[in-house]
Amino acid sequence: MATDYRPPAGTDLIKLDGARMIADGIAYTDFATAGERVRAGDSWYEVWAGNGRRYEELGQAAIDEGHTTTGARWLWTGCMNYHYAQFLWFHEPERREEGQRRKVDLYRRAADHLLPPSERVEIAVGEVTIPAYLRLPADAPGAGGPLPCVLLIGGLESTKEESYLFENMCIERGLATFAFDGPGQGEMFFELGLQPDFERYSSACVDYLETRPEVDPQRIGVLGRSLGGYYAVRAAAREPRLKACVSWGACYHLADIDDYPPATREGFLYVTGLEDRDAARRQLDAIDLGDVIGDLTQPTYVLHGALDEIFSMRHVELLREGARNAPLEIVVEEHGNHCGHNLAHIVRPRMADWLADQLSS
Amino acid sequence: MATDYRPPAGTDLIKLDGARMIADGIAYTDFATAGERVRAGDSWYEVWAGNGRRYEELGQAAIDEGHTTTGARWLWTGCMNYHYAQFLWFHEPERREEGQRRKVDLYRRAADHLLPPSERVEIAVGEVTIPAYLRLPADAPGAGGPLPCVLLIGGLESTKEESYLFENMCIERGLATFAFDGPGQGEMFFELGLQPDFERYSSACVDYLETRPEVDPQRIGVLGRSLGGYYAVRAAAREPRLKACVSWGACYHLADIDDYPPATREGFLYVTGLEDRDAARRQLDAIDLGDVIGDLTQPTYVLHGALDEIFSMRHVELLREGARNAPLEIVVEEHGNHCGHNLAHIVRPRMADWLADQLSS
Repeated sequence: MATDYRPPAGTDLIKLDGARMIADGIAYTDFATAGERVRAGDSWYEVWAGNGRRYEELGQAAIDEGHTTTGARWLWTGCMNYHYAQFLWFHEPERREEGQRRKVDLYRRAADHLLPPSERVEIAVGEVTIPAYLRLPADAPGAGGPLPCVLLIGGLESTKEESYLFENMCIERGLATFAFDGPGQGEMFFELGLQPDFERYSSACVDYLETRPEVDPQRIGVLGRSLGGYYAVRAAAREPRLKACVSWGACYHLADIDDYPPATREGFLYVTGLEDRDAARRQLDAIDLGDVIGDLTQPTYVLHGALDEIFSMRHVELLREGARNAPLEIVVEEHGNHCGHNLAHIVRPRMADWLADQLSS
Repeated sequence: MATDYRPPAGTDLIKLDGARMIADGIAYTDFATAGERVRAGDSWYEVWAGNGRRYEELGQAAIDEGHTTTGARWLWTGCMNYHYAQFLWFHEPERREEGQRRKVDLYRRAADHLLPPSERVEIAVGEVTIPAYLRLPADAPGAGGPLPCVLLIGGLESTKEESYLFENMCIERGLATFAFDGPGQGEMFFELGLQPDFERYSSACVDYLETRPEVDPQRIGVLGRSLGGYYAVRAAAREPRLKACVSWGACYHLADIDDYPPATREGFLYVTGLEDRDAARRQLDAIDLGDVIGDLTQPTYVLHGALDEIFSMRHVELLREGARNAPLEIVVEEHGNHCGHNLAHIVRPRMADWLADQLSS
C-alpha cells in the first residue's frame, strides 16, 4: 500500500503514502510520475514545486477566463503540490519556507472561488495571529438557521489548507468548518513554534465563532489529525464549549519520539522553532495529555490505524485508560496505517458522520 | 503512468490505467492492492467482485443506520468495483453479466441518496427500454428556472453508472445531467446489441427531456466518452435540438479495429450481441460518421489524447475534415492517453466548463 520515496542526499528516508496523497488531493498521475522521477534521481522538492508552478499557471488562467470553479481547484491542487514539496523537508529550511509560502498563497487565491467559498479569518491572540478559514454549507440540512461547526486542526505537517476535501465531507453533512493553524503549524510556525498550551488557541477560535451569527455556539466540535489528535483532545478537555471531539490518530504524548521514523522525529524538534536541541526536546516533553485527560467529558471518537508507523497502539491504550470521564468510541482499523490514510475513503466519511450525529441535534 | 495488469489465463493482456480507475472512483488502496494480488496469481474478476461485495455490505449498513450520504457513496464504490471486475471480461460472458447486474443493482440502491439524488428514468423505444438517470443541481447557478442539461453517453465499456463523478463536475457548474445506456451498453446490451442508428435512442432522450419542466429544451447538449465520442457526434448531427456536442475521445469509425488491443477488439465484436463473427464485423463496419458528419452544425469540442492506445490521431483528422459545417474546438493532449484519462483532473473540468459556457446562456 505504502510507497517508499527516497529523496536525494541530505535527508532521511521519507515514507510517503500514495493513498494519503491522493485522498488529500494529489492527482494519481502526478504521484506516479513523481515516483519515477525521484527514483531516477530528480529532486523530490523540485518535482513537486515544478508541478505547483504549473498548476498555479493553469489555475490563474482559468480564473482569468471566468472558469472560477476549475481555476480554484487547480490553484488548490498547486497548493497541495507545494505542500508535498516541503513535506518533512526540515533539512533545508529556506526551501521548506518557500514551499509553505507558496502553499499559503495559492490557497488564499483559490479561497473565494471554492464551492462553498472559504473565508479568510485572522484572530489576534497575544502577540500572534491565528490564520483560519471558515466554510459554510449553502444548501445543506440545517441551512437557514445557525449551523453546527467543527474546528479542524492539522498535525506536525498538515495545515488548514490540507483539510479541504475533508471539509467537503463535513459540509455535505451540514457542518460548517473552521480550519486553522496553531503554534508550530503552517503559517503560524513563522510567528510561534509548537506550544504545550494549544488550548489557548483553540479556545480563541471558539470565542471568535461565538461572534458569528451563522454558527450555533452550542454545537461546536473539534477534530485533529495526527499530532492534531493530541491537540483536539487537549482542546476539548480544557474547553466545555466544545461539544464533541475526534482524535484522528491517537497521540497521547511525544515521550517515544526516539522510536519514530527519523524525518518525523526531526520534524517535531524543528517545529518547536528552537535552535537548541535540548530545549526543543524539553518542549516536546511537555506535550502530554496526563494533566488534562481526566477533564475530558465530551463524547470523543478515536480513529487509529493498528499499523501506524508513528504512533503505536500504546497511545490508544493510554487514551482509553485516561479518558475515564468521557464517552469514548474507539475505532482501530486493523489494516490501517498512520491516521488510516490507506483507508481514507472508509475512515474519513465515518468521522464526518459521527461529528454530524453529535452536532446536528 | 499506465499500469499493465495481466489477468489470469483465458484472456488477452488488459492494459488498465490507474489514473482512469481512480478518476472514475476506485480507491488508490484498492487499485494498488489489486495490482499486487493479480500479479501474485489471484483472479482479476474475483479481486474486484470481492471488493464490490465488501462495499455493498458497508454501504447498506451505513444506510440502515441513517448515514445515507456515506452509504450511497460506498454502494456506488461497490458499483465501480463490479464495473472493473467485468471490465473487458468478454471471454466469460456469465461472469461479465453477473458483474453488470451487480453494478446496476448497487447504483440503483445508491441513487436516491446521492447528492443531488439520481432519478431513475426508463424510456420505451420500440421493443426496448432506455435506462437512464437524471440529476438536477440544487443550489447551482441558474437553479430556480429550467436548467440546461447534458446527455451523457458511455462507450464500449463505460455506462451511465460510471459518469457519476463527471456528473458532479457538470452539476457544480449549473448543468443537469442525463446519463443513459444505448444499444450495446450496460443494461441495454441484454435487450439490444450495438446499432448503427444510435441517434434514434439519443433523440428519444431529448423527447423525454422536453417533458420535464426542470429542463430547458433549448439548452440540451450531448457528451460521449470513448466510443461515445462517436455516438455523441452522430446524435448531434441528426438532432438539431442538441445545441452543443463533446466528443471525449475522437472516434470516426471502427474500420481500424484490427489495430486495437485484442481485448478491446473482442469487446467491440461482443457488444454487437451477434454470435456470428462475420455478422458482428459487418455491424461494426456500419459504425461510420461518413453519412452524417456534413450535417453536424453545432459547436463541437473534441478532446483527444495523442497517445491514445485505441483511437489514433487519424480519427481526429477525419473529424476535422468531415465536420466542415460545425464550429470545432479540438484539444489534443500531447501526453494524454485514451480519452486523456491520465490527465483526468485537467481535461474533465475543461469539458464541463465548455458545456456550461455553451449551454448556460
